Amino acid sequence: MKPALRIIEVGPRDGLQNERTPLPTGDKLRFINHLVSAGLREIEATSFVSPKWVPQLADADELAALLPHGPQYSALVPNERGLARLLATSIDRIALFTAASDDFTKRNINMTIAESLEAFKPVVEQFRAERPNGFIRGYVSTVVQCPYAGMIPTQRVSEVTEALFALGVNEVSLGETIGVAVPEEIEALIDELTNWPKEKIVWHFHDTRGTAIANAAVAMEAGYMAFDASAGGLGGCPYAKGAGGNMATEDLVYFAERNGISTGVNLMELAKASLPVLAQLGKPPTAKSQLAALAEEH
Amino acid sequence: MKPALRIIEVGPRDGLQNERTPLPTGDKLRFINHLVSAGLREIEATSFVSPKWVPQLADADELAALLPHGPQYSALVPNERGLARLLATSIDRIALFTAASDDFTKRNINMTIAESLEAFKPVVEQFRAERPNGFIRGYVSTVVQCPYAGMIPTQRVSEVTEALFALGVNEVSLGETIGVAVPEEIEALIDELTNWPKEKIVWHFHDTRGTAIANAAVAMEAGYMAFDASAGGLGGCPYAKGAGGNMATEDLVYFAERNGISTGVNLMELAKASLPVLAQLGKPPTAKSQLAALAEEH
Repeated sequence: MKPALRIIEVGPRDGLQNERTPLPTGDKLRFINHLVSAGLREIEATSFVSPKWVPQLADADELAALLPHGPQYSALVPNERGLARLLATSIDRIALFTAASDDFTKRNINMTIAESLEAFKPVVEQFRAERPNGFIRGYVSTVVQCPYAGMIPTQRVSEVTEALFALGVNEVSLGETIGVAVPEEIEALIDELTNWPKEKIVWHFHDTRGTAIANAAVAMEAGYMAFDASAGGLGGCPYAKGAGGNMATEDLVYFAERNGISTGVNLMELAKASLPVLAQLGKPPTAKSQLAALAEEH
Repeated sequence: MKPALRIIEVGPRDGLQNERTPLPTGDKLRFINHLVSAGLREIEATSFVSPKWVPQLADADELAALLPHGPQYSALVPNERGLARLLATSIDRIALFTAASDDFTKRNINMTIAESLEAFKPVVEQFRAERPNGFIRGYVSTVVQCPYAGMIPTQRVSEVTEALFALGVNEVSLGETIGVAVPEEIEALIDELTNWPKEKIVWHFHDTRGTAIANAAVAMEAGYMAFDASAGGLGGCPYAKGAGGNMATEDLVYFAERNGISTGVNLMELAKASLPVLAQLGKPPTAKSQLAALAEEH
């Protein structure tokens, strides 16, 4: 029997953060509850970023207090102030955000990559002191191409990954942020990533141009078994308005299960989970396996 | 330099045939003109099936007379009556439809596979006599799984392909009709298809569950360079209402070009081609690379 797939559901955080229509906390909670019922066991619930920057997630503290028990939750923490807020909750997984392109980090978090890594140090130290059993994920965005700097050398990705592990993160999520990559580019990156055990690497693909599943396929083929995904493909890419964002969790679940890899997720339940959110955002469902699952029921 | 990709655009036929909202001939023509402007050189324009069965394509004769010069057009021909209509036009490529599942052909064309092959014989003979330079494609549907009979043995696909070539077709298009397959299933099929040169096989993938590009990727990797696709992903699958249909030509073009394989197609022009049709059918555009291209322009 093949090993099971780890799915890190990022819809509530990455999927919602760029949406302007404010979603009430109760609706986010209903969404998360539905994701839990569908079988998801790792959920990135929110971000403790300043409400000025991400108004959609201003209710992080309130939401964290209401999360249903069961799954492992993570939350993005941009700095010590964010960490202080997180430490007042029971969430014991944090995510730190950087990229493989200085142009990208400068525009997104107003720091170079080196400055971001420097800023993580006190966050990691304090988190480790307060939560000895806590878990830290590091995000590396733009691992293939940056919307500002263009193509990213694979070695650059490897260096930032190395720096994050040196800081003490437990895993690194590699983000193909703008959804342009094709499998041979992912394979080239995989060839560069020989320093770390595959269990410590998570792939984060975007489906902006329909290549997410093809890319996930080669990563699975290479033995990687952890993927970020977003229910309903939630998460518009702010760099390409109207274009699709995250790989849909539905497509990932369908793909894995059809390959004989278990996910523990009920696809039909999952397909329904994002519908109320999409409706509130005024967006039709577009994730392929979500539509197929919903169509099968009728 | 890598060889160029052959794209057979099937939107005007396969994409429209199941749509109930009647599209005026002038709008179909505008669609085809736009596809030609975008650079598509092979287009399946219509079907000479009985208007009773496919009312949407009842204007095949009229449309055929108006087609812009330049590309190579094909049309589906179900029987001798259809062929007689086609022979009154200048279209010199016909497509014959069968499947790898008797349950599927029985429900679709009211014949077993063997009966369909028998029925093709006089069509092929007459077409060859009237159009010595004509071209015949044979469709084999349900090459991985049938919605009625379930999984299809790869050998069955091979047998029907063999029978079509024995009848004298020039190429065979293998249809993964319900969009359920994953790359390892396509690879298994490829392993079975060693009897024919790769140039004589066309792959026809559906993106119902987001796997079309992943499947096309392994077929390209294996050396196949001809694919059916539909602009905007037009073509709802009648077996799963609301679910996606054909692989979007936009996704195929993006994928090939990103892999350094030329298509001769202007993606931005292509992305616009299906918009008026989608609007008339009351459907939002959902093809990933179409949305991404349109978003980039704004």
